[in-house]
Formats: sequence, C-alpha cells, structure tokens
Amino acid sequence: MTSHVLTLYYAPDTCALASHIALEHAGADYQLERIDFRAKQQRSAEYLRVNPKGRVPALVTERGTLTETPAILQFIAQRYPAAGLAPLDDPFDLARMNAFNSYLCSTLHVAHAHRMRGTRWVDDPAAIAAMQKKVPQSVSECFELIENEFFVGPWVMGTRYGVSDMYLFTLAQWMEADGVDPLRFPKVAAHRERMRADPVVSRVIAAELEPS
Amino acid sequence: MTSHVLTLYYAPDTCALASHIALEHAGADYQLERIDFRAKQQRSAEYLRVNPKGRVPALVTERGTLTETPAILQFIAQRYPAAGLAPLDDPFDLARMNAFNSYLCSTLHVAHAHRMRGTRWVDDPAAIAAMQKKVPQSVSECFELIENEFFVGPWVMGTRYGVSDMYLFTLAQWMEADGVDPLRFPKVAAHRERMRADPVVSRVIAAELEPS
Repeated sequence: MTSHVLTLYYAPDTCALASHIALEHAGADYQLERIDFRAKQQRSAEYLRVNPKGRVPALVTERGTLTETPAILQFIAQRYPAAGLAPLDDPFDLARMNAFNSYLCSTLHVAHAHRMRGTRWVDDPAAIAAMQKKVPQSVSECFELIENEFFVGPWVMGTRYGVSDMYLFTLAQWMEADGVDPLRFPKVAAHRERMRADPVVSRVIAAELEPS
Repeated sequence: MTSHVLTLYYAPDTCALASHIALEHAGADYQLERIDFRAKQQRSAEYLRVNPKGRVPALVTERGTLTETPAILQFIAQRYPAAGLAPLDDPFDLARMNAFNSYLCSTLHVAHAHRMRGTRWVDDPAAIAAMQKKVPQSVSECFELIENEFFVGPWVMGTRYGVSDMYLFTLAQWMEADGVDPLRFPKVAAHRERMRADPVVSRVIAAELEPS
C-alpha cells in the first residue's frame, strides 16, 4: 500500500461522500479505505479499532482519527486553506456554515436514517414500519427549511462555494429514495445538478464505486 | 429592555444550557429571552421569525442569528478567545472537540429525544411507546462510548476545560430521566458533580429558573 498523509474510511452512498469531495477539492494527499456495509464490516473488531462508533466517515491523520462530518469538513478546510472551502477568517460566517452543517447531521440525516436504520431507536417491527412511513414528511420538512430559509444562493452560504455545498449535495442525493419530490425544492434541485456537473464530484463518485 | 450585544433564546432544561454556560464563562455581554415550551411559544409566529426551526438555542448577534449548539459554542469560544474555551490554535484538537460536540447533537441528543419528541419521526402512538422503551438502552450506548473512548480526563478533551465540558454536562443532566444509571459511567458522573460544583454553572442554572 502506498503511504499517504490521510486515509478516509468510507462506504459508497453514505455521508462520507462529503468528506471525500472536500479532500479531492482541497488537493489533499489521501487514500481511500472502503468499508463493506453489506458484510457489516463497520462492526468488525478491526474497524472498531479505527472508529469505535462503527460508522463512516473516519479520517485517519498522523495525529489520530477524526469522525463526524461537520468536524472533518472544517478540519479539511483549515488544513488546506488555499482551497478556500470555508470562511475561516470570519467567526460569524464560520458559525453560520457550522450551523448549516450541524443541522444536516443532527436533523436532516437523522430524519433520513429512520427509513433504513430504525433499529437504532426501536426494536418492534411494526414501529419500524410506522417510522418509515413518516420519512417522506420529516425529510421534506428539512428540505423546506433549507430551500426557504438557509440556502442563500448561488451556493449554500452565498457567493462562496464550500464544504456546505458538498454536504448538502451528499444528503440531497437521497431525496427520491426517501420519497421526497425534488420538484418541490427548486433551489436544492438545481444546486444538486450543478454539483453533479462538477468533474471533481464525478471523479469522486466514480472512485467510490471502483473495485477495491 | 437594556441593550446587550448578544441575546440567547433558551428554555429551562434544554440543550440551550450549554451555550448559556459558555456565555457566562466567557464574560460575554448578553441577555436572556426565555421561550415557554409549555405554551408552545417556540412555534409562535414571533419566535419563528427569530428561529424558523422553532427550537432553542438561538443566539442573536449584531450580524444575525445563530443556531445549533456546536456552532454557537465554537462561535463563543472564537469571539471571547481570552476565556480559552476551545483549542483555537490547533485545527486537529479543534476538530476533536467538534467531533465530540457533533456526536452529542447528532447521536446522544437524538437518542434522548425519542423519549419526549417521538412525534418528530412517527405518528402512531404504539410506535411512540415502542421508541420510549428503547431510550435507556440507546442513550446508555452513547454514554458507554463517551466513558470508554472519548472522555480523556480530567476534562472531556484532556487538561483544558472548555465548551465540550459544558455540553456534556448539559446532556448528562438527563440520564436519570432517560432511565440511565449514572453509576455505570463513573467518569461522566464525577464530571457532572464537578460541573455542578462550579459557581458559574450554579448561577446560570438559577438564572434560567428565575421568573421572567
């Protein structure tokens, strides 16, 4: 294995995509390690030594392992300041960015997770089904707030492209599977198309699907 | 009303306590605005103009309103650097702090919320009851990770006291109500006692309960 400065543990079609896009946009020296969710590799003893949470993403650095997308995104932006991925020189704008990212992880992603990861919060199969039923509504409510209140345009935080764009794009990929109609959210849908057209994003998505 | 630089919208016994402790420790010039959850004031048209999410905390600044505890905590630490509430000069340590705070908002607080706020994710009363049943287990699993993996000691992040201590303390107050036995988590329980003994923390809690 070649030696790189950073290693991103990821699985395809997870929120790890946001950190992956950030690393690629930043021009970071990193390698990928794919975790096989179908084989439940995220719960293997080997991976739990990397990340005791048994989740992705995990970013291994020379000083230790970082987890949680909002934390990893700000870290990448600070480590590669030339890429301009966050408003590092303005604590208020940085807080706005982190508020947006925190909303994605604690509210939007959580609403989404009630479709496939319901056993985190309930054991009864009938309750799992009842939770899945509400996902289109609860996820749509999140996108309503994003569309009408938080999305500044042309990018999430305004004129500057940055890590919040990568994170929103990642979670917006799941709209259809969550029973959410993208036509109700024209700004988010147009943003998603613009992100998909970015060659860096296409390259990152292709790399996640390559045989490991 | 006297004019202060910052206004914290809060409700007693919510995660807004963490931001309140941080403001007080930082020596910030701030005022409190209590939101009456029993009267559903967080959903009033007036409050939704302050925070369209209909939640607390919200921190109103001269440049606009900030939400989401992890974002507010880093903002307070950056705005009042003399208080030393975050490792601002070390991006890796700052990311570790933010990973901890992000885990609290997206995993621990979410597990807790399934006891009282289940209607966010399900409508069926039987499913609500099934979710409440699992709260002691899901919240305990979070405290297990905190106790065994994340808590460095003597403070959450090590030798430096900071915003993660305030945030952990805030959520650890809910252990008993969530059916979690603090004796299983001696580091977290001892930390909670040390925080309770802090005169700043006592003053903040008393201020939240004063008649508005």
